[in-house]
Amino acid sequence: MNLLLLHPEDFIAPGQARIHDRRLRHLHDILRPQVGASLRAGLLNGNLGTATLTRLDTEAAEFSVRLAEAPPTPAPVALILALPRPKVLRRTLRAATLLGVKEIHLLQSWRVDKSYWQTPLLTPRHLREECLLALELARDTRLPKIFVHRLFRPFIEDELETIAGNRCRLIAHPGAHHSVGEAHNPPAILALGPEGGFIPYEVERFLQHGFVPISLGERILSVEVALAAALGALREHQHRARGFSAPPDFPND
Amino acid sequence: MNLLLLHPEDFIAPGQARIHDRRLRHLHDILRPQVGASLRAGLLNGNLGTATLTRLDTEAAEFSVRLAEAPPTPAPVALILALPRPKVLRRTLRAATLLGVKEIHLLQSWRVDKSYWQTPLLTPRHLREECLLALELARDTRLPKIFVHRLFRPFIEDELETIAGNRCRLIAHPGAHHSVGEAHNPPAILALGPEGGFIPYEVERFLQHGFVPISLGERILSVEVALAAALGALREHQHRARGFSAPPDFPND
Repeated sequence: MNLLLLHPEDFIAPGQARIHDRRLRHLHDILRPQVGASLRAGLLNGNLGTATLTRLDTEAAEFSVRLAEAPPTPAPVALILALPRPKVLRRTLRAATLLGVKEIHLLQSWRVDKSYWQTPLLTPRHLREECLLALELARDTRLPKIFVHRLFRPFIEDELETIAGNRCRLIAHPGAHHSVGEAHNPPAILALGPEGGFIPYEVERFLQHGFVPISLGERILSVEVALAAALGALREHQHRARGFSAPPDFPND
Repeated sequence: MNLLLLHPEDFIAPGQARIHDRRLRHLHDILRPQVGASLRAGLLNGNLGTATLTRLDTEAAEFSVRLAEAPPTPAPVALILALPRPKVLRRTLRAATLLGVKEIHLLQSWRVDKSYWQTPLLTPRHLREECLLALELARDTRLPKIFVHRLFRPFIEDELETIAGNRCRLIAHPGAHHSVGEAHNPPAILALGPEGGFIPYEVERFLQHGFVPISLGERILSVEVALAAALGALREHQHRARGFSAPPDFPND
C-alpha cells in the first residue's frame, strides 16, 4: 500500500477522515505510523495529497487530510481482453490498473473456456476490490471501468463500432509485421486474445472494423506480459511523438 | 507448453528423441496427440522446428525431429534486479524469459529482506526449471544466464563496470524525466529496484557508473510489470531506430 486511498464515506468532516477496515489492519501490521506521521493519500476518483495521523487504536485511525494534487494522467489506451482464466485475470487487472488503463472490456472468444465466466472475481464487488488494491500500489485514484461482454458476435456487430469510436484500433497478433508505433496515434483501443490467441475468424472480424494487427515480438507472451509490453511501447511512442525536452537536471556522465 | 523443448540427452539417435518426464505427462494430460501428429519443437539453446510423434505410451514418447529454424533473436537488454520476494521472483523470471532476456543479475539492495536469499527457488536447478517453463511457453530455446550477487558494494565496486561494458546503462527510477528512448541505444543493461525502490545511496552509485535514470510513468509499478513495460518501450524504440518498412501485406482499412 503506497497510497492511503480514502473513500467519500470515510470523511467525518471536511478534511477529516476515519478508517476501520483492511486499511486499518495494514496500518497496524505493516506501516505502524506514530500519531503525527504523514502518509501519501488520495480520494477515490479524486485528488492526491497527504493524510496526517491524528488517532490510531484498535477501533479506527483518523487523519487530517489535504488533497490538492491531480492524480496521474490516465493511459490513453482502452483494452479489449479475451477473458483470461481467473488467476490470470487477477494479474491482468492488476497490471492494467498499475499502468493507468481506465477502460477494460472483457470478452468471450472461441478459446475462452466457458467456465471462466463462473469465477466470483467477475462480480462487481471483487473487480472493484482488485482494482482498489492496484490503485493503492500504483498511487493512483481513478478506478478503471470494467465492462463484461459474454457473447462475441453481438459485441463485434452491435457494440464495437461505438466503443472504439475515433480511437486508433489495434489488435495484438503474433505474425503481424507492425510495431505499436507504426499504427498508433493516441488515444487507442487495443484488443488482446486469450491463451492460444483469437481464432482466424475473430481476427478477421476485428480487421473488418479497422483494427490494425501489431506485433509484440517473435515470442508468445502471457496476457499480462503482453499487456505491459504493449502499454510500455505505446507510452514510448507517445513520448517520442510529443518530442523530447531535456530538463535542466539531466545527469551527465 | 507451446514448444516441446528437447534436451541433448533426449536424443537416442540423430533426428530421434525420447522423453519421459513432465513433458510426457503434459502430452498425456493436455495435448493428447495421435501418432503421426506434428508438434512445434526446439533443442535447448539450439534450433526450432517440428517433432513428429512416432510412439506414445505410459513409458515414453518418441519423436522424429527436424530442427532447421533459428530461435527468436534475444532481447538486446540485460537486467540487474534487486532480488524480489520469492513469489515475485518467479513471476519476474517468467516475464523476463518470455520477453527474450538472456542475462539476469540478481542483486542484494537495502530494501531487499535478507530472508529472500533463503528461497529454494534460487538454487540453480529451480532457476533453470522456471526458465525452461517460460521458454516452452514463449517458443524460445535459449536459457537465460542468471547471476547471483549477494552483496551490493562489491558488486558495484568490483563487478559492475565489467558487466555493463559498452552497453547503454539505464536505471528505472520514479521521478526521472527521461523515457527509455531518449537514453537508449541497444544493447542496454537495465537496473530495476526492489519494492520501495533503491535507496538514494544506491541510485547515486549507479549514476556514478554512468547509468541514466529513466521513467516508466508517474505510477509505482510492480517489478514484473515495470520490466515488461520497459522491455516493450525498448523494443519500440529499437524498431523506430531501425526505420519502418511497410510489408506488402499491410492491411488497409
